Amino acid sequence: MPTNRRVTIALIAEEAGVSAPTVSKVINGRPEVAAETRRRVEHLLHKHGYRRRTGNDDGPVGLVDLVFAEVESPWAMELIRGTEAAAHEFGASVVISVLHSHAGPGRDWVERIAARRTDGAILVGSRINARRHGELAARSIPFVVVDPEGEPPPGVASVGATNWNGGLAATRHLIELGHRRIGMIGGPPDMLCSRARVDGYRAALETAGIAVDPALIGYGDFLVDSGRDRGHTLLSLADPPTAIFAGSDMQAFGVFEAARRRGLRVPDDLSVVGFDDLPLARSAWPPLTTVRQPLQEMAALAARMVLDPDRSGGREPRRVELATDLVVRESTAPPSR
Amino acid sequence: MPTNRRVTIALIAEEAGVSAPTVSKVINGRPEVAAETRRRVEHLLHKHGYRRRTGNDDGPVGLVDLVFAEVESPWAMELIRGTEAAAHEFGASVVISVLHSHAGPGRDWVERIAARRTDGAILVGSRINARRHGELAARSIPFVVVDPEGEPPPGVASVGATNWNGGLAATRHLIELGHRRIGMIGGPPDMLCSRARVDGYRAALETAGIAVDPALIGYGDFLVDSGRDRGHTLLSLADPPTAIFAGSDMQAFGVFEAARRRGLRVPDDLSVVGFDDLPLARSAWPPLTTVRQPLQEMAALAARMVLDPDRSGGREPRRVELATDLVVRESTAPPSR
Repeated sequence: MPTNRRVTIALIAEEAGVSAPTVSKVINGRPEVAAETRRRVEHLLHKHGYRRRTGNDDGPVGLVDLVFAEVESPWAMELIRGTEAAAHEFGASVVISVLHSHAGPGRDWVERIAARRTDGAILVGSRINARRHGELAARSIPFVVVDPEGEPPPGVASVGATNWNGGLAATRHLIELGHRRIGMIGGPPDMLCSRARVDGYRAALETAGIAVDPALIGYGDFLVDSGRDRGHTLLSLADPPTAIFAGSDMQAFGVFEAARRRGLRVPDDLSVVGFDDLPLARSAWPPLTTVRQPLQEMAALAARMVLDPDRSGGREPRRVELATDLVVRESTAPPSR
Repeated sequence: MPTNRRVTIALIAEEAGVSAPTVSKVINGRPEVAAETRRRVEHLLHKHGYRRRTGNDDGPVGLVDLVFAEVESPWAMELIRGTEAAAHEFGASVVISVLHSHAGPGRDWVERIAARRTDGAILVGSRINARRHGELAARSIPFVVVDPEGEPPPGVASVGATNWNGGLAATRHLIELGHRRIGMIGGPPDMLCSRARVDGYRAALETAGIAVDPALIGYGDFLVDSGRDRGHTLLSLADPPTAIFAGSDMQAFGVFEAARRRGLRVPDDLSVVGFDDLPLARSAWPPLTTVRQPLQEMAALAARMVLDPDRSGGREPRRVELATDLVVRESTAPPSR
């Protein structure tokens, strides 16, 4: 937590019982500091809210880091567009990194961006642990998570959508159309955004007095193929669903494919709802009923939070959820049986 | 052209009739040099193939710049993925900039990336003029263009696909199915990649003895809406086409939409061929027959050309065209009339 008293390197060094150059080395991501000393210094930097003095070489560098676990879906493009648009307002460019893993960035990543310098980092879809958080905070690198895997440590700012409400609205729409056997294909179960959508689905069923059937719930990876495969599994049941709520638009397109391969028409024989409202949802066939989450706005807000923390609500870490909306198009209809 | 003789700042300064610090200022993108002097120095730096000495602060910075005119299509995502994958091999990250214009980057962009430092730049879909090329070359910033607007100046390395062959193959496929009234919806006419596809279409018709009807040729912006709008125009003709070759998959999806809104079935009433083979082409309905261009490989090659010019074919600027392939799926069939 920042204090009014100016936190100096000398003060941190004194409290940590090390020399001032050692503290500087930790701040600048140099390797030649013992691990235990580094952690002690990072802890104190974080505790006292140390901020680099803005000097000649210390102004904005014009780069914001956008770090993805994976970039296999057009969904990532929407986040890139939103981040780029907001960065553009600040004359900054966006650095894309892809971790190719949901385990989160390593210490080497923190040291690399600290050495190269960045104005802030946005982590998408990956895990962030307390140690990494401490390392970033110790180097005064503002950062925000979007749709993290797992629960981020306390003090981490985050941006997301009202996933639970979106899951509730999608499922209620299907119930109101008369569906009772409603399948759910969630995303990865260890992503909070995905769990919240599934919980919204459960809540809608339960409040409507419909028992949740575990056989009707599957999990994918948010991509087309998993929607197709889980779709085939659900449609092969002895008592198959008449509607499926897919946890992402890409999974919904996979369900379309599964339905077609089985000779089922959407929405006549099967209603399908997606989640995201990617630009393609509108021009899909049939046009996809889906839960819109404002991906570009989410990313733009995250970028403003790291690039201009004072104007976007102060340096206090915040958790922001932007509203979702159900967009009814042509992939949902009353059940035919 | 690089020479064996070591080109020094002193040598450039002598030939330009200025001081060595003035040459340094030009190299480092500092503003306080008269425009004419700057151009003379840049010309000499370029002519002599000046390269920065790789010293302490002059090694790779771990950033490659990927500069888009626009990023409105999932097509951009494929280029980002390819660039990122290749950059990853070099431990580098990708900086995304979006110009929001096809006019090409300005001088301020060159100065910004020179001041911040970059290992190289890839320009996608925008114009590059000789002056910008000279400024980049003068600062030893390796760069490559992908699908430029207009003709790039001599000496600019480029990566593309065999667009003309792709246009030829797509149109021949339709002719072989029996189509004679074949519409074409090209991309922006001042993009070479788009022109080449249209010329391939013309060549296929002409070699088959079918007259080219200008009324059957429209131009869009590669996005869904322009495909839909031009599709409606073509389908409203007194003698409408029985097949349409769209210059991009997104435009083909727009043609799907136009056909559906008019009650036409694809491929029964209208055959459609796209261009790109985006991941979505496979899961579209019907699955899209399209010309595959290897977007990820193109971007990866461009990234390797800037990050490792010595190993990817030397510092001589090259123009590389990767092969396209026709992928026949379910959106094409013999004409019904």
